[in-house]
Amino acid sequence: MCEEVHKMREAFKEAWSGFKGIKWTDDVNVREFIQNNYTPYEGDESFLAAPTEATNKLWGRLQELQKEERAKNGVLECETEVVSSLTAYGPGYIDESLKDLEKVVGLQTDKPLKRAFMPYGGIKMAEQAAANYGYQINEKYHKIFNEYHKTHNQAVFDAYTPEMKTARHTHIVTGLPDTYGRGRIVGDYRRVALYGIDFLIEKKTEDFNNCGDGTMTDDVIRLREEIAEQIRALKGMKEMAKAYGYDISGPAKDAREAVQWLYFGYLAAIKTQNGAAMSVGRISTFLDIYIDRDLAAGKLTESEAQELIDHIVMKFRMVKFARIPSYNELFSGDPVWATLEVAGIGMDGRSMVTKSDYRFLHTLENMGPSPEPNLTVLYSSKLPENFKEYAAKVSINTSSVQYENDDVMKPVWGDDYSICCCVSATQTGKEMQFFGARANLAKCLLYAINGGMDEKFKVQCGPELAPIRSEYLDYDEVMHKFDLMMDWLSGLYVNILNLIQYMHDKYYYESAEMALIDTNVRRTFATGIAGFSHVVDSLSAIKYAKVKTIRDESGLVTDYEVEGDFPKYGNDDDRADDIAVWLLKTFMKKIEKHHTYRNSEPTTSILTITSNVVYGKATGALPDGREAFKPFAPGANPSYGAEQSGLLASLNSVAKLPYEYALDGISNTQTISPDAIGHDLGERKGNLVRVMDGYFDRGAHHLNVNVFGTEKLIDAMEHPEKEEYANFTIRVSGYAVKFIDLTREQQLDVIARTCHKRM
Amino acid sequence: MCEEVHKMREAFKEAWSGFKGIKWTDDVNVREFIQNNYTPYEGDESFLAAPTEATNKLWGRLQELQKEERAKNGVLECETEVVSSLTAYGPGYIDESLKDLEKVVGLQTDKPLKRAFMPYGGIKMAEQAAANYGYQINEKYHKIFNEYHKTHNQAVFDAYTPEMKTARHTHIVTGLPDTYGRGRIVGDYRRVALYGIDFLIEKKTEDFNNCGDGTMTDDVIRLREEIAEQIRALKGMKEMAKAYGYDISGPAKDAREAVQWLYFGYLAAIKTQNGAAMSVGRISTFLDIYIDRDLAAGKLTESEAQELIDHIVMKFRMVKFARIPSYNELFSGDPVWATLEVAGIGMDGRSMVTKSDYRFLHTLENMGPSPEPNLTVLYSSKLPENFKEYAAKVSINTSSVQYENDDVMKPVWGDDYSICCCVSATQTGKEMQFFGARANLAKCLLYAINGGMDEKFKVQCGPELAPIRSEYLDYDEVMHKFDLMMDWLSGLYVNILNLIQYMHDKYYYESAEMALIDTNVRRTFATGIAGFSHVVDSLSAIKYAKVKTIRDESGLVTDYEVEGDFPKYGNDDDRADDIAVWLLKTFMKKIEKHHTYRNSEPTTSILTITSNVVYGKATGALPDGREAFKPFAPGANPSYGAEQSGLLASLNSVAKLPYEYALDGISNTQTISPDAIGHDLGERKGNLVRVMDGYFDRGAHHLNVNVFGTEKLIDAMEHPEKEEYANFTIRVSGYAVKFIDLTREQQLDVIARTCHKRM
Repeated sequence: MCEEVHKMREAFKEAWSGFKGIKWTDDVNVREFIQNNYTPYEGDESFLAAPTEATNKLWGRLQELQKEERAKNGVLECETEVVSSLTAYGPGYIDESLKDLEKVVGLQTDKPLKRAFMPYGGIKMAEQAAANYGYQINEKYHKIFNEYHKTHNQAVFDAYTPEMKTARHTHIVTGLPDTYGRGRIVGDYRRVALYGIDFLIEKKTEDFNNCGDGTMTDDVIRLREEIAEQIRALKGMKEMAKAYGYDISGPAKDAREAVQWLYFGYLAAIKTQNGAAMSVGRISTFLDIYIDRDLAAGKLTESEAQELIDHIVMKFRMVKFARIPSYNELFSGDPVWATLEVAGIGMDGRSMVTKSDYRFLHTLENMGPSPEPNLTVLYSSKLPENFKEYAAKVSINTSSVQYENDDVMKPVWGDDYSICCCVSATQTGKEMQFFGARANLAKCLLYAINGGMDEKFKVQCGPELAPIRSEYLDYDEVMHKFDLMMDWLSGLYVNILNLIQYMHDKYYYESAEMALIDTNVRRTFATGIAGFSHVVDSLSAIKYAKVKTIRDESGLVTDYEVEGDFPKYGNDDDRADDIAVWLLKTFMKKIEKHHTYRNSEPTTSILTITSNVVYGKATGALPDGREAFKPFAPGANPSYGAEQSGLLASLNSVAKLPYEYALDGISNTQTISPDAIGHDLGERKGNLVRVMDGYFDRGAHHLNVNVFGTEKLIDAMEHPEKEEYANFTIRVSGYAVKFIDLTREQQLDVIARTCHKRM
Repeated sequence: MCEEVHKMREAFKEAWSGFKGIKWTDDVNVREFIQNNYTPYEGDESFLAAPTEATNKLWGRLQELQKEERAKNGVLECETEVVSSLTAYGPGYIDESLKDLEKVVGLQTDKPLKRAFMPYGGIKMAEQAAANYGYQINEKYHKIFNEYHKTHNQAVFDAYTPEMKTARHTHIVTGLPDTYGRGRIVGDYRRVALYGIDFLIEKKTEDFNNCGDGTMTDDVIRLREEIAEQIRALKGMKEMAKAYGYDISGPAKDAREAVQWLYFGYLAAIKTQNGAAMSVGRISTFLDIYIDRDLAAGKLTESEAQELIDHIVMKFRMVKFARIPSYNELFSGDPVWATLEVAGIGMDGRSMVTKSDYRFLHTLENMGPSPEPNLTVLYSSKLPENFKEYAAKVSINTSSVQYENDDVMKPVWGDDYSICCCVSATQTGKEMQFFGARANLAKCLLYAINGGMDEKFKVQCGPELAPIRSEYLDYDEVMHKFDLMMDWLSGLYVNILNLIQYMHDKYYYESAEMALIDTNVRRTFATGIAGFSHVVDSLSAIKYAKVKTIRDESGLVTDYEVEGDFPKYGNDDDRADDIAVWLLKTFMKKIEKHHTYRNSEPTTSILTITSNVVYGKATGALPDGREAFKPFAPGANPSYGAEQSGLLASLNSVAKLPYEYALDGISNTQTISPDAIGHDLGERKGNLVRVMDGYFDRGAHHLNVNVFGTEKLIDAMEHPEKEEYANFTIRVSGYAVKFIDLTREQQLDVIARTCHKRM
C-alpha cells in the first residue's frame, strides 16, 4: 500500500509540482490542499483584465443564441431522440466555426442551449416539457420508460397515500420534488482536477471493499450498489472527456486543465441530472492556486487567466433543462442554480479571497450581468475592505450578487462548504441533501381556524379537529389549534419527503455527483416554510388587535376584518419579531420529532424562491390583511407593505431569526433605491458595505441586494425590447433572473415588493 | 361497507350458487371455501374417463411439436423481438386449425413452445439463452436493458463482495438465483376463479389504504409500491384474458370457467417470471367443487370433466423458458417445477381426496407419462386405501409421481399448502419464499481440513484458519474445525442470499404472483445443503475407521485413504445416522443466527435436484471414499454404493432426519426393481403402499418413486430413438425428467444410483 502511494506521487509529480502539504496527497482532501496552497489577496481590482477577443466573440455568439431562444418562447431546441447520459453525445461547441476559441469545452447535448431528454425523473414530465415547446419525444421512449423502466415520478405516485395526494392538491405542501429531480447535490468537481479520475476510482473501490462487515442489511446492500454505480459514473466521465480529446484519468497539470477537468465533473452532473438546483460549488480559491502557479511560472498571463474564468462562467451561463409549465410557475425565469461562491474566511482566520474571487465577480463586468452562475459572496465584516467594496460595486451595477454570512455558516459547515441551491450550505464533497420544498404554514393557520377544511378547495384535507366557532379570534385558542395542526402537517410533510427521497434514490440516483462526494456522506433532510411573514403578522394581529371572522354560508371562515393596529414583522419590533422566532423554532422542533429517510439530519429553511406567487395563489385570506389568493412575501421577507421603518429596521427583524434553527437558510431579498444609499458609486458602495457589515454581524444569514428604483422595473416591463434590458438582471428570492424572462404576473409581484427609499 | 358486501354477493349469486359458507365471501379465503364445499371421494378409479378425441388430437399435435423441439436441440423457437409481459402478445393456440378443441386457452407467447424473451432477471442471460439456440435478441434491447433499465443479475454483481464472488467461483455456495429468477412463489391462482379480478383489486386497494400508519419507513414505502404494482398486474391479467375473449373481472360461473380463470392466473405468472420453479399449487380439490356442481346439475359429463383436467395439464406440460447452459447443467432436462399437488388430509381429519385428484393422476394414463406438471401426492397412511393403491399403480407404471408426508407438513403449514418447487411446502396464498440454493457442506469439510484453501482451485476462499497438519485425521479436531468453518460458511451464505433477495425485489419483483397472495405475507428464507451424505459418511469414517491424508507438494490434502470399515448413512445404523441428524441441526442453527432479508424465517433443505453432479464436479476427494470431482449423491439420499442393507434400511435412515430442522424439504429418490416389490401389478402396488405407509409414519418427508431396472435405463441411453422411450419419465431429485432429455453424463449418474433389488 505504501509503495502504491509512493508510485502515485511519483506519477503525479509534474501535476502536483510546487504544491505544499502531504495529507491531501494520500486521501481525497481538497480542503486540505486549498488551505496549504492558496494565496490570500488583499489588493484591489486594478489587476483585472478585460475580456479577450475570443471571449467577446463567443459571448457575442451566445447572446445571439439567447436572443433566438427568447424569440422561440424560451427554448431554442429540445432533444427528442437521445436519452441524456455521460456518453450519449459526441463533442459539442458553442459554434463549430469558433470552437478553437473555446478554452473550456463541453456541452450538455450536441448543440448549445439544446435541452436534453431526461426521462428518469418522470417520462410524463419529459414528454410534457418537450411538448410544451412544440417537440415530440420519439414514441419508442414512451414504451421503454413506462413498460420496461419505471421512473421516479411514477414510483412516488404509486406509493402516495390519499391524504398525501390531497395535501399536494390543496398546496398545503407544495413544490415537492416529485415531478422534477431533487437536485441540491454538489459534487466536489475540484476533485477531478486535483486527482484525476483513476485516483478517485481507486478510492471509491477501497470504500466499496470496506463497505459493511459482510452482514448484508438493506442499508449496506443499498450503499454497495450505489458505490458500484458511482464507479461506473467515474468511468463514464473519462469516456465523456475523451470525446472532447481529453484524458482525465490523471490530475490536471496546469490551470487550463484544472478549469477544464473541473468543468467536466460538473458537466457529468448536468448531463445525468436535472434537479431544480445544480450548483457548481466553491471553486474560486481552488482554481486560483493553479492560476497562481502558472502565472508565477510565466505560463499564463492575467488576460489568459481571466479568459479561463470567463469561459467556464460562460458555460455555467448556458446550463438549461427542459421543464414543465408547473415547474416554471414555481421557479420563474428558468433558473438552474448553478450557484458559485467566492470569498469566506478560513478556520485559521485568513481571508480566502484570492485574485480569482475577483475574476469570478469580474465576469459580470466582462460579459455583463447574468442570472447564472448564481454568484454568492460568503460574507464577513472581516473580509478585506478592498474586496467588500469591489463586491458592493458589482452588486450595485448588476444586481446579480447575493451575500451569505460566513460567520454563522462556518461553525456549522466548516470553511469548505458550498451553497447547494439558492442559499443552503452543504459541506463540499462531504454532504448531500434530501431537498424537500415547503410546507405552507399560512394555510396551516387557516386549517387551525377551520378545523382542517381547505378554504380554497373546500375539502377536508387536514384532520377533522374542532374548528373555531367564535366571531372574534382568541389568541390562546388560535395558538393551541395552530400547534395541533402544525403537529399534523409536520408529520405528513416529513413522510411525504421520506417517500420521495426513497424513490429518488431507487429510480434516479445521482451517481455522477455522489462519485465526487465522500462515501461516508452526511445527509441533511431539508424542509422549508412558506408564508412565514403572513403567519407572524396574522398571529400579531390576533394578539394585538381584534380580528373578526367572516364566514361563508357553510360557516367556513373565508375572510377577516382587523380592528385596530398591530406590530408587523419587518420593523424591528420585538412584539412581532418574537412571534417570528417562536414560529421558526416550533416548526423545526416538530419536524425533528419524525423518522427521516436514511436517518438524515432534518433542517428547515425560510426561502421560497419565486414560488411565493404559486403558494399565495392557493391560499385564502389571512388575518394579517393579505387578500385571498395573492402572492406571499418571498422567503423570510417581511410582507409587502409591512415594512414601514426603513431598510435597517427591516434587516434587523430578519437578523433576529436564529440560523441554528433554519440551517437550510433564511432568504432575504431587498431592493434599495440607488439614491437611498448615496449620491455616487463611491458613497453607495461604502454605505452598502456598512449596511451588510451591520446586518451580518447581527447573525443574519442571507441578503439579496438589488439596487434600482421601481421606475426601472416598470419601464423594463413595458419596454422589454430596449437593448439595456436584454441582460437586466434582478435578484429574487435566492437567485437572479433576467427581468424580461419573468411573466407579467411575476413582474408585477416583483414591482409590488418594497423598494427602500431610505435607510 | 356492509352494503357493498351485500351488493357484491348479489352480483356473485349465480357464480356462487350452491356454495356453502359465509366467511370466504367477505374476505379472500380459498381454504375456507374448499373446506366448506368439497366432497371427499373414497371409491376407486373405475369412474375415470378415457381421453376425448379433442384431447387425443391436441396431445398428438403437441407431441409432434415436442419431437420437433427435441430435433432442434431442445428448443423449438426463441422470441427475439418482444419483451414478455402480460399483454405483450395477442392470443396463441397449440394449433390454429385445432383451436376450437382447446378447452383451456392461453400460451406464454404467440406460438406453442416458443420461448419468451425475459430480460429483467439479466439481459446477458436472456441474450445468452437465445444465442445458445442460435437466436439473436434484437440489438435495441441490449441498450435498453443495459443503459436504461438495470437488471437483477447486474445489480447483484454490482454489490457482491470479492469473498462472495470467490465462494461462488469455487462452488462452496452454488446454484444461486443470481443468473435466473428465484421463483418458488406460488400465486393462489384459484382466487382468480373464485373471486374474479375486480374483487381482488378491491381487496388489494383496501390493503394499500391500510398499509402503514403514515410513517414512511423504508419497509412501508417498499410495501406500498409493491401493492401498487400488484394492482397494476391484476389489471394486466384482465387485459391478457380479454385478448382470448374472456372477461375475468368477475368470478368463474362454471367448471370450465374455473379451470380457465385459474389457468389465466398461472399464465400471468409464467408470462412475467422465469423462476427456476414456477409451481401451480394445490388446485385439484378446489376445481373438484366446480366440477361436482356442474356434474350434479347435468351441465357436464365425466368425459368433459376429464377433458378439462387433461387440457389444463396439457398447458402445464407446455411451460418452457429460455435457459443458459450453466442453468441447464444445474437443472437437467429443462424442468420448470410446475408442481401440482393432490390428496392430503384436512385439519378436521377428512381426506381431501376428490374425484379430481384421480383425474389429475389419470392424465398420466390418458396422455402418457410426463415430467410436468410435477405431480405430487400429499401422502398419509390415513388416505383412502383405494386412492393410495391407484397412486401406487400410476407410480409403478409411469415413475412420474412423488410423495410427500402430509402428516409432518400439516402441523407446520396447515391443510392448504402447496409445494413451491420440488418438495418445499408453502402456505397457498399466504406465504412466499426467498429461494437460495445451497451451501456445499462437503467442500466446507475439506476447507476445515485445509484451512480454507480450496482443494480444486487452489485459492484461499474460506478464512485462513490453521489447517490440520497430522497424517491421520483426529475426529475431535476435525469436528472442531468443521464447526468453525460452518460458522463462516453459514454467515457468508445467508448474506449472499440477503443481497440477492434484495435485488430481486428491487429489479424483478413478482407482482403478478404476489397479487394473488395476501399482502400480509409470511416470508421464508430457504437455504439448502449439498453433499449431505458425503459429509456424514466422511465424519463416520474419521470416527470409526482410520483416515490417512494424502497431500500434494504444497501440503494441501487432496486425497484420503481409509483403513478399516465404518458405518454409512443409508443402512439404518444409528452410528452414522446420528451424525446425519447432528449435521442438519448444527447447520440450521448456524443459519438461524444471522440477519435475514425482510426478517424472513430461515429454513433449510436437503435437496439438490440434479445439481449434485455440478456440485460434485467442483469438490475434491472426500474421506468417505468418494473420488474427486465425481457427482454427489442427490438430496438426502445415501451415497451411491453406501446402501448395503436394502430399501427399507435406506428409507429408515432418511426417515430419522427431523423435518422441523429442514422445513424446506428432505428429498429422497429411490429406484426399485419391479421384481423386488412383487410379481404382478396387484402385488407391487400393495407392497409399495405398505413401504410408503411405514416410511411416512416414521416421519420421513419425501419420496420419489421409480420402478424399473437399471437395464431399462441402459437400453434407453443406447437406443433413445425407440418409440417406447419417447416419453420415458423418471423421478430424479425432486422432479421428473424425460430420461432421453438428459445428457449422457447425467444419464450415467442416474444409472450409477442404487437400484434396490430387495426390500
